[in-house]
Amino acid sequence: MKREQLIREIFKKRTYLCVGLDTDPEKIPLHLRDAEDPLFEFNKQIIDATRDLCVAYKPNTAFYEACGAAGWETLKKTAAYIGASHLRIADAKRGDIGNTSERYAHAFFRAMDYDAVTVAPYMGEDSVKPFVTSPEKWIVLLAHTSNPGSADFQLFGDKHKLFEEVVLKSQQWVGSGQLMFVVGATRADRIGHIRKLAPDHFFLVPGIGAQGGSLEEVSLHGMNKDCGLLVNASRSIIYASSGTDFAEAARREALSLQAEMSSFLDRLA
Amino acid sequence: MKREQLIREIFKKRTYLCVGLDTDPEKIPLHLRDAEDPLFEFNKQIIDATRDLCVAYKPNTAFYEACGAAGWETLKKTAAYIGASHLRIADAKRGDIGNTSERYAHAFFRAMDYDAVTVAPYMGEDSVKPFVTSPEKWIVLLAHTSNPGSADFQLFGDKHKLFEEVVLKSQQWVGSGQLMFVVGATRADRIGHIRKLAPDHFFLVPGIGAQGGSLEEVSLHGMNKDCGLLVNASRSIIYASSGTDFAEAARREALSLQAEMSSFLDRLA
Repeated sequence: MKREQLIREIFKKRTYLCVGLDTDPEKIPLHLRDAEDPLFEFNKQIIDATRDLCVAYKPNTAFYEACGAAGWETLKKTAAYIGASHLRIADAKRGDIGNTSERYAHAFFRAMDYDAVTVAPYMGEDSVKPFVTSPEKWIVLLAHTSNPGSADFQLFGDKHKLFEEVVLKSQQWVGSGQLMFVVGATRADRIGHIRKLAPDHFFLVPGIGAQGGSLEEVSLHGMNKDCGLLVNASRSIIYASSGTDFAEAARREALSLQAEMSSFLDRLA
Repeated sequence: MKREQLIREIFKKRTYLCVGLDTDPEKIPLHLRDAEDPLFEFNKQIIDATRDLCVAYKPNTAFYEACGAAGWETLKKTAAYIGASHLRIADAKRGDIGNTSERYAHAFFRAMDYDAVTVAPYMGEDSVKPFVTSPEKWIVLLAHTSNPGSADFQLFGDKHKLFEEVVLKSQQWVGSGQLMFVVGATRADRIGHIRKLAPDHFFLVPGIGAQGGSLEEVSLHGMNKDCGLLVNASRSIIYASSGTDFAEAARREALSLQAEMSSFLDRLA
């Protein structure tokens, strides 16, 4: 999905929600566990219930890999089921030497139908650039993550911090049409700071919901004129209920976030 | 595999070779491509030909993921085929927030039989520690990699560099019985420096062979009294011949490295 289409979808649907499909076999409702592919059945119902309320879905590969080859098949079927109407982000946090990153790009962009992959920056330019394979494919580079350990190395440096170096240097490699940054919601002041370093880029923002970030703060500090945000919620949506009503409960949660997002988009007008 | 067993194997077999199974469907010999599982057939023959010459095998997950669910199955079968006699390293470069890294640990250590996983440090302590699941499982943390892009962020910092911070800080989280560092062979002087920062830890050293690093330099600067090195070679061994003699050619390459290693181990005596 190209940048222009993503922006169009955001303003048309009045949402910049990304639904995180962190689908865990031990957390899905009991009545689904006997299905042929329980994770896929769960994802399908979540997707059906939230399609009109979000512009992106983001399965985290860890949950699928934990199920072995069957989980990998579910990951593929999930991308196909979502279809080209939404940005499909494989939250894989990959990154390796050039010829190897190229294989990861193949895995997510060709063997499966994902539009974007999250990438860890530690190995530098030749680990990142192989993911730029065609104009509608995206790299989502970790900049400042939402977890407690983000302080360990991302804040390394004296005046100038590592996450700043990552945001500045990577812009020389890939343009804003194919590069987003992961910026955690848990420190909203830092989102404003990173917005100054990368005025045009989209940010994928995890940390709303279960991790405690505020949607209002994130929107206030992170938006640019194109919106420039994809705000992710995973557990707070997909596990809103553990009963047979899980999909309706997920829709309620997504709807509440979408309504808030719609009002923040009004401020841009 | 526990540290003591690994050291015992190194001195018994007189080798610290790790064979990298970067098995690419487009590079394996033509006569194998009609096999039921060509990648596994290739791996089996490479493993049979090199078992006595190495102490570890390291499949890079990218090459298997590029083949979809079938590749993931091959990855699992490969670990089982190698068996507990060798350290089985999944070169996956994973790392995510705590509950997610825990799922990756499950994927490699429980759903499959790997003994070690390579981990990218960018997300910090809570992304690394979930891989410490039991005393015979290892984290292999990226410190200073062998690729050109390693200079982009790993050398970030004024006097004190990021890779040094990674090596020093992570030792506070995990002991030398479960933590190794990836240290590229392409800058042997830096291996000596990192050895001073981490005198007891094993280093997994890629970059010999196709990437141009010297085994002698690496051994000279990197060894400690327990050997402390696993030197990886991938392409130079597994693609030594593209013909029906690929396994014999791989053995010849591995044997030549093992003979050199044996002489370097003599110097420790």
